[in-house]
Amino acid sequence: MDIKNLENIDITLSTASKINEVDFDNLSFGNTFTDHMLVCDFENGVWKKPSIEPYAPFMIDPSAKVFHYGQAIFEGMKAYKDNQDDVWLFRPEQNFERFNKSASRMAMPEVPEDVFMGGLKRLLEIEKNWVKKGDGNSLYIRPFMIATGKGVVAAPAVFYRFMIILSPAKSYYSGEVKVLIAEHFSRAANGGIGAAKAAGNYSAQFYPTKLANEQGFQQIIWTDDATHTKLEEAGTMNVFFRINDTLHTAPTSERILDGITRKSIIDLAKRENINVDIRPVLVEELVEAAKNGSLKEIFGAGTAAVINPIVGFSYKEEYFELPKNEDSFAIDLKKKLTDIQYKNAEDTFGWTVKI
Amino acid sequence: MDIKNLENIDITLSTASKINEVDFDNLSFGNTFTDHMLVCDFENGVWKKPSIEPYAPFMIDPSAKVFHYGQAIFEGMKAYKDNQDDVWLFRPEQNFERFNKSASRMAMPEVPEDVFMGGLKRLLEIEKNWVKKGDGNSLYIRPFMIATGKGVVAAPAVFYRFMIILSPAKSYYSGEVKVLIAEHFSRAANGGIGAAKAAGNYSAQFYPTKLANEQGFQQIIWTDDATHTKLEEAGTMNVFFRINDTLHTAPTSERILDGITRKSIIDLAKRENINVDIRPVLVEELVEAAKNGSLKEIFGAGTAAVINPIVGFSYKEEYFELPKNEDSFAIDLKKKLTDIQYKNAEDTFGWTVKI
Ligand SMILES: Cc1ncc(COP(=O)(O)O)c(C=O)c1O
Ligand SMILES: Cc1ncc(COP(=O)(O)O)c(C=O)c1O
Repeated sequence: MDIKNLENIDITLSTASKINEVDFDNLSFGNTFTDHMLVCDFENGVWKKPSIEPYAPFMIDPSAKVFHYGQAIFEGMKAYKDNQDDVWLFRPEQNFERFNKSASRMAMPEVPEDVFMGGLKRLLEIEKNWVKKGDGNSLYIRPFMIATGKGVVAAPAVFYRFMIILSPAKSYYSGEVKVLIAEHFSRAANGGIGAAKAAGNYSAQFYPTKLANEQGFQQIIWTDDATHTKLEEAGTMNVFFRINDTLHTAPTSERILDGITRKSIIDLAKRENINVDIRPVLVEELVEAAKNGSLKEIFGAGTAAVINPIVGFSYKEEYFELPKNEDSFAIDLKKKLTDIQYKNAEDTFGWTVKI
Repeated sequence: MDIKNLENIDITLSTASKINEVDFDNLSFGNTFTDHMLVCDFENGVWKKPSIEPYAPFMIDPSAKVFHYGQAIFEGMKAYKDNQDDVWLFRPEQNFERFNKSASRMAMPEVPEDVFMGGLKRLLEIEKNWVKKGDGNSLYIRPFMIATGKGVVAAPAVFYRFMIILSPAKSYYSGEVKVLIAEHFSRAANGGIGAAKAAGNYSAQFYPTKLANEQGFQQIIWTDDATHTKLEEAGTMNVFFRINDTLHTAPTSERILDGITRKSIIDLAKRENINVDIRPVLVEELVEAAKNGSLKEIFGAGTAAVINPIVGFSYKEEYFELPKNEDSFAIDLKKKLTDIQYKNAEDTFGWTVKI
C-alpha cells in the first residue's frame, strides 16, 4: 500500500473551510482544529484503507476499551512554513518510531509507515493554508490511536482507530514558569509505562499539578518514585540544568520519555562545544548548586514549547530563584533550534523534511 | 435532586428488548449489554439531568481528553437475584465512595449520590429481567466516567460524561490459574494512581500480562516497583496467601486498590476465627513457605471472580505447585460470601441492599 497515491486513501473534502473564522493572532494552544482529519481503522488484525474526511465527532460504543482501560497513545509534532511557503516537518521519523514503541508497550498494533507518514503528508498537503509563516507559528500535529474494540473484560482490544488531527499554534508562551520538585507524587513506576506516550500517564499528573498550581507553581519536576532523589522530567518536557557551563540532563529510562527536542538540544549543544553531562541529577546537587551560585539555568524541552526557561524552583518549602543570565543557553539553543525548524539556518543535521 | 423520583430523570425505553437473543448459558464475560444505559453529563461545573436511554454508541469529538490524556475511571459491581426474585446489591456504597476517590485523584468531578445510586437503582428496576437467578449468575454493573471536554492541551477537561452499562454474567471460571511473580514490570508507582480505578492502570498491564500468558501463566502478581520484594495484587484482584492456618494479605496503600471483596473476606475470615495477618508479604517468605510446605493456598479476590484459587506460581524461573487441600479457605470463604450475596445465608454484616 502506498498511500502517497491518491487511490489508496479515501478523500472527502469539507464543503466549506472554517479557516476564515479563526483568529490566528489569538490562538490558545490545542483548541482549534483544521477542516480535515485522517482516520484509519484496525479490524481483526488488518489496517483498513485510511480516509481523510471533514473534522467531526464520531460514533463509539460505551464499552470501547479506551474508556475503561485507557488503551490510548499519542504523538505531538509540528509543521512549519518557511519564507518560500514550503511546509516542513522536524524529525518526523522519530515520532513515528516512538509512536510504534508506545503501541507495543500498550499491547496495541503498530501503525504502518505509509498510514502514519503517507497519511500525514497527504493531510498536510490539503491543510497547508493552516500552516502560517512567521516567528513561533506552526501547525501542531496530533497523531493518536485508541482502542475502539468493545467489551468490559480487562484485556487488549481487537479493534483500534488511528487518527491525525491538526491544530494551528502560536509560539507557546506560558509566562514565568516556577516549578515544584516532587517529594511525594510521581508520574512513572520502574517497569511501568513512563517511557510511552500513553494517555494514562498524563491524567495521572493532573491532580498533583493542580495542587502545585494552587501553591503558585506552573509545573512539577518529577523525581524517581522510589527515592524522590533523582530529577527526571516535567509534565510534557524533559529538563536541563545548567551548572556553571555544563548542561546536565537525566538519561532516558523506562520512566522517562525519550524526547526529540531533548536529543536535538544535546546534539546542538555539543556542536556549540557546550559540555553536556547525561547522568541522573540529584535533587541535593541542584539545591547545593542553587545555594553556592553555580546553578545558572533550568529549562524544559518539548515540542509544544520548544524550550521553556524556568525562573525558580521550590523544594521542601524552600524557594530558589534562578539568576538572570546575559548568555542564556536556553535562549541561544532555542534560537538555533527554531532557526533550523523554520529553515532560517542551514540544517546540517538533516533533521527537516519537506512536505 | 432526588432522581429516585421519575421526574428527575429522563427515560426513553427501547422499542424492542434484545433479551431473547441472548444465550444466558453461554455468556462470555463483559461482551453482552442490556437494553438501556444511564447517561449523565457534567458541563461547566454542573451535573445535568441524567437520562436512561437505549444502549447505543454515542458521538464524541476526536480531541476529547479521554482519548489523549486518559482521564477515565470506572467501578465494577454486581446485582444478584434471590429465590424470591428480589434484586440485591453488595455493599454498593463502597463502590460509590471509591468511585469518587478515584475521581478526585484523576482531577475529575465527584458524581452526586443521587446520580450514581439513584440512577443505578432506576436502571436496575428497568433491567431486572436481565438479572438471572441461580448459582453464579449475576448482572455485572459498570459505572464509568470519561473526560468528554475537547482540546489537546494537557490539562483536566471541563466536560465529563458519567455512564452506567450492564452486562449479564455467569460465574467466572478461568480454569486453573497459574501466576507469575513480577520481577521487572510493575503496575503502580509510589505517589502514583495505583489506588484509583483509573483506566490507564489497566492497559499498562496488558503487555506484561501478554508475555506471562505466552509463558503459560494467566495472571501476574505485582510486586512493589522499587524493590520487587513485596507482593501486592493481581490484575483485577487483591491477593491472599495462606501460610499454615494464617491468612496473609498486603495492606492497601497508594499502590494497591482497596478491594471490597478483600475487606469482606477479611471480615468473614475473622468471624470464622481464622487468623488474618495484614502486612507486606515478602516474595522470599512465599518461596520459603512453598519450599517448607507451610504455604497452603494463594487466591485472588475481586468482584468479577469473587475468589479465584491459584494452583501455582513461578518466581525467577522456578515453578512452585500448591498442594490440594481438603479444607480450602478459598472454597469455604467463597461459599460464605456468595451465600450472603445471593441471600442464602443471613447477612449479619448488613452488606446487602435491596433494589
Ligand atoms: C512526558 C513527556 N516528556 C517529554 C516530552 C518532550 O518530548 P518531545 O521533545 O519529543 O516533544 C513530552 C512530549 O511532548 C512528554 O510528553
Ligand atoms: C487492581 C484491582 N485490584 C483489586 C480489585 C478487586 O476489588 P473489588 O473486590 O472491589 O472488586 C480490582 C477490581 O475489581 C482491581 O481493579
